[in-house]
This record gives sequence, C-alpha cells and structure tokens, in this order.
Amino acid sequence: MSDLPRQVHVMEVGPRDGLQIESRIVSVADRLRMIEMIARAGVKEIEVGSFVNPRAVPQMADTDAVFAALDKRRGVAYRGLWLNPRGLDRALANGKVDVDGKLTLSVSETFARRNTNRGIDDTLAEMPAWIARYRDAGIAASSLVVMTAFGCNFEGPVRPEAVVGLVARAIAVMAEHGARLEQLSLADTMGWAHPVQIKRVISQVRDRWPDVELKLHLHDTRGCAVANAVAAMECGVKSFDASVGGLGGCPFAGHKGAAGNICTEDLVFACEEMGIETGIDLDALVEAAKFAEGVLGRELPGKVMKGGTLTQWRVGHA
Amino acid sequence: MSDLPRQVHVMEVGPRDGLQIESRIVSVADRLRMIEMIARAGVKEIEVGSFVNPRAVPQMADTDAVFAALDKRRGVAYRGLWLNPRGLDRALANGKVDVDGKLTLSVSETFARRNTNRGIDDTLAEMPAWIARYRDAGIAASSLVVMTAFGCNFEGPVRPEAVVGLVARAIAVMAEHGARLEQLSLADTMGWAHPVQIKRVISQVRDRWPDVELKLHLHDTRGCAVANAVAAMECGVKSFDASVGGLGGCPFAGHKGAAGNICTEDLVFACEEMGIETGIDLDALVEAAKFAEGVLGRELPGKVMKGGTLTQWRVGHA
Repeated sequence: MSDLPRQVHVMEVGPRDGLQIESRIVSVADRLRMIEMIARAGVKEIEVGSFVNPRAVPQMADTDAVFAALDKRRGVAYRGLWLNPRGLDRALANGKVDVDGKLTLSVSETFARRNTNRGIDDTLAEMPAWIARYRDAGIAASSLVVMTAFGCNFEGPVRPEAVVGLVARAIAVMAEHGARLEQLSLADTMGWAHPVQIKRVISQVRDRWPDVELKLHLHDTRGCAVANAVAAMECGVKSFDASVGGLGGCPFAGHKGAAGNICTEDLVFACEEMGIETGIDLDALVEAAKFAEGVLGRELPGKVMKGGTLTQWRVGHA
Repeated sequence: MSDLPRQVHVMEVGPRDGLQIESRIVSVADRLRMIEMIARAGVKEIEVGSFVNPRAVPQMADTDAVFAALDKRRGVAYRGLWLNPRGLDRALANGKVDVDGKLTLSVSETFARRNTNRGIDDTLAEMPAWIARYRDAGIAASSLVVMTAFGCNFEGPVRPEAVVGLVARAIAVMAEHGARLEQLSLADTMGWAHPVQIKRVISQVRDRWPDVELKLHLHDTRGCAVANAVAAMECGVKSFDASVGGLGGCPFAGHKGAAGNICTEDLVFACEEMGIETGIDLDALVEAAKFAEGVLGRELPGKVMKGGTLTQWRVGHA
C-alpha cells in the first residue's frame, strides 16, 4: 500500500448528482442548507446544481436561485454542470458559479446518445467549439470526464484500451485547439468497476499520460465503490467525487432503487482511518447526510450515518 | 494484486447471524426454504442456526426442528453455533449438524463479558474442557474465532499486537491439551476494520503462524466490508463468512439500524468480477436474498440485489 496518498480531495456531488434523480423536489432553502452544512464540514469543492432544461430535470430548475442566494465560503469552489452552450451561458451570467473548463465524453455510444442526444464522434466534433467558448470566458478547457469508463448496461464490458483510445482522441482534439489536459475524471457511471479493473485502467492511463491528474467518479450500484476507491488510492489517486448519504444513482441504468454515488462519509471514514487526510469533519458531514435524509424522507444508503463514527476514540489520537 | 487467490470459500451465516437479530421470528418452513435456496446457489457451508437459550434468543428456538427437517445436500456442510456445553449436546444429539471443533475468544474483555458472561481468562481456562468435549465426540478442536479483532465499541481501537498475543495464549493452551490450530477466524464484530489495518493484522499473524489458514468475519457497519475483504484477498486470504442481503448486525454494538455482515452477493460479485472463483451462482443467490427480504418485510442493505448482476454480459465470457 506504499502509494497511498497522504491527502485526498473530495468533491461533493450530492446537491446535483444526488438530488437530480429524487422524486421529491427539494426547496431552494433546503438545498442551500445542505450545501452550507457540507461546506461547514470542510468540503472544499461542491457541485451545487446543474443548468439544464427545467422541464427535463425539474429538480434542478432553481439552480440559478440557489447560486444567487449562496453565501460562499472562502476557499470553497462551488461548481455547476451544463450540457449545452445555453447552460454554460446561464452559469456564466449567474456570476457566482466557479466555472471550470470541463469537457465530457462517454466510452459507450449508446449511453452518450441517451444522456446527451449525441454520439461520440459528434461530441468530439463539438469539442473545439467548447474550448473556444471557455476561452472566451477566460477559462482553460483543462479537464475531461469520461463516462461509462468501466462498463455500460447497454453495451456491456468496457476494455481499458477503449478508454485509452478515447482519451487519446480527445487529447489530440484539445492539442489541436490549444487546450491541454490536466485532469482526467474516470466515471463508473453504472457501477460496473471492480478493484482489479480500477488498477488495470489506471495503470494503462498512467503509462500513457503520467502527468495527468486522475480523478474517480464512482457509483456503488453493486457494492464495490469503497473497495474501488481504496484500489485507486493504492495507485496514488487522490481526487474523488462522492455524495453525502450515498445519494444519487444513474437514471439511465434501468435499476430503480439501486445505490447511488459512493457515499462521502463512508469514503471519508475509510480515508481518515487509513491515515489519509481529507480535511473534513466526519461528524459534521454525517449531520449533513442526516439532514438530506430528513429532507428527502427516505432512508439513504450511507453506512457511517447509521453505524456511527469512531471520532470519540480518536481524541488525542494524533 | 499478485496474491489474490484463485478461489474463495464462503460460509453463509445469514440464517444464524442474520436472523438472530431480526424482530420478526422466521418460521421453520421459511428458514428451511432460505437455506435450501442458498445451498442450491452453490454455497458449500451454511450456518443453519444456533443452539442457545430460546428465552434469550427466541429467533433461534426452533434450530433443532430446522436441522431435523433439513434435506441435506451432498458436499454442503450445515453448521450450528453453541455457547455452552448444553448447546453442543443439543447439536450432537440432533445428528444432522456438521459439528466442527470451534473455540471462541474475544480481544475485548468488556465484549466477552457482555456476549458470553465470561472474561478472557475464564474463557481460556475453560478451553481444555471444550477440547475434551469435542474429543469425546470424535472431533478435533482445530479452529479458533477471535471476536472484536479490529476494534470494540466499548474499549476502542484494538492493536494487532493484542490479537497476536491472545492467539498465542490460545495456541499454548491448545498445544498443552493436544489440539492444533488449523484455522483462525478474525472477526470484525463491530465494523471497525479498514483495509490498511486488515493487511497489518494479517501480516503480523502470518509472520508468526505461516501455516494457519486465515478466515475473516466482516461487518459492514461503516461501509468498509468489501474493501476489507479485497484487502484480505490481496494477502491471499480465501475464506470468508458472509450473509445474504447483508443480513445481520451486532446486537451489542449499540447502533440500531447499522448495517450487518458483509453481504454474500456483493462479496461474490466482487470475487467473480475479479476472476476469483466462488462456485456460486450469483443470480440464484440474489433470489435467496430477495426471498429473505420478503420474509423479513424490510429492505436489506445488499447492493447487487438492487443494482442487478452482470451475469448476462458474462455469457460465453469464459
């Protein structure tokens, strides 16, 4: 376990990736409260909401209002998500969004079409326009999210070579348009990954692009999320998306009731117990998860929020 | 991951460790049905029930009847649990129990007293009598279960040295009375373990007793169970307890609603995906978990039973 990082960075995605699939629409006030509790716990990057079609995703309709009312903490990045130029324009116009130059692709053609109404080639063809759009806003298009990087419920297993091939194509397009990949986020959108595969994919990506920072976006659909995060950390990965209470899920996976994203508290618990700093107060984070559970009125899949932290035993432990 | 075993053996403990803490008492017919579904899925060792005081654990009151009615499959071991000589006598008298010579200790003095009404010294002092009792029945006392081997809600963290020290004392007593330790089961009774600790404890135990077969009994109280199992497999451990649907929990842990044992389907899923054979039909096992969920009338924490197996994609994969 020699490559375990000393610190891990967690981006909380519950307020966006989590709430967007809930049948209950959470009020602006409750979204703000949840975000503030998460920030107060010490999380330094939070996906606040998405700027998408309010008819398609009514749960995110008030994202402009949430950002407008946000009492931003210093040192915390408040992120948004957009799928088309109009969404980016809304984010930029809002003025309070910490806009990052994110590009997105999917290894699965079928999923790409279902999720964004565009195939892989179309998405690559549109990339130069996105790079230009970000540049016009003074932002470098430096990060790439690759969805369904470990498997797809529609197309089946995904080989590491397919991931490497797709990333190579994206990097070529980016290079041609003056953009440089700094962070690559590999998303296990439908919860297919297992620890051996995680290590295999990371190893192949690393061999090819040793300087690119890796991030993982894991789903716990089949119970491997924490094991996958540990496998990634053993390879030195130190950046993860996660959602409080294990909120979330994939609306296109076709398994209603399936578990969501890797649970932030459970990930933070594992890190802190293993001696990896997250800068997050676990007890405060559990309070945020319990608040979310109360607001949504359904039991969330997070484990630490039910099993209890071990913080009381760590007093004077450092 | 070079030490990953080629095969893993799973003992299903749900019908005992799981059902014993449920408020609903499951009928003999349903217990039999559940056990048969698990056996039919290919599980080769099943803890059927315990022979304990029916007033203290009414859920297990009918264990004699369950065994009596059991249609045993060839090649499957049907285990029982007992905490005192009377329980062992019941198991032996039943005639259908595959009695194994199991000795049990706890690293935590407080937990030992709460769980068995005896301290560690008392338990060690009674060991020779247990060895003799097993010998009278023609059974070698060759396995040892160490509970709270990774932490205790009453006493706090447990150091690996404490585990090694306790096992050394037990082995000395066993040797003095002609018994030899073949299998050591380390139990994370209250879900304290994390992957780094798992590797640390296994490494220290292995250094001292390289020939003893290791087994892990994991709880998912704080979400690390699968990650811990993977960490153990990376050290070559190939024997685990698990419970369908993630049934179970520790009645003494003081966290009502906390997750139970590591979920059998989720463990089997992780193994099979990583190329480790379990001999278990995952889809059939999921059916057993769903049956248990229906009988108990509450949602079980298992993930694969909700997220779906990937078996359809593995057809022709071998």
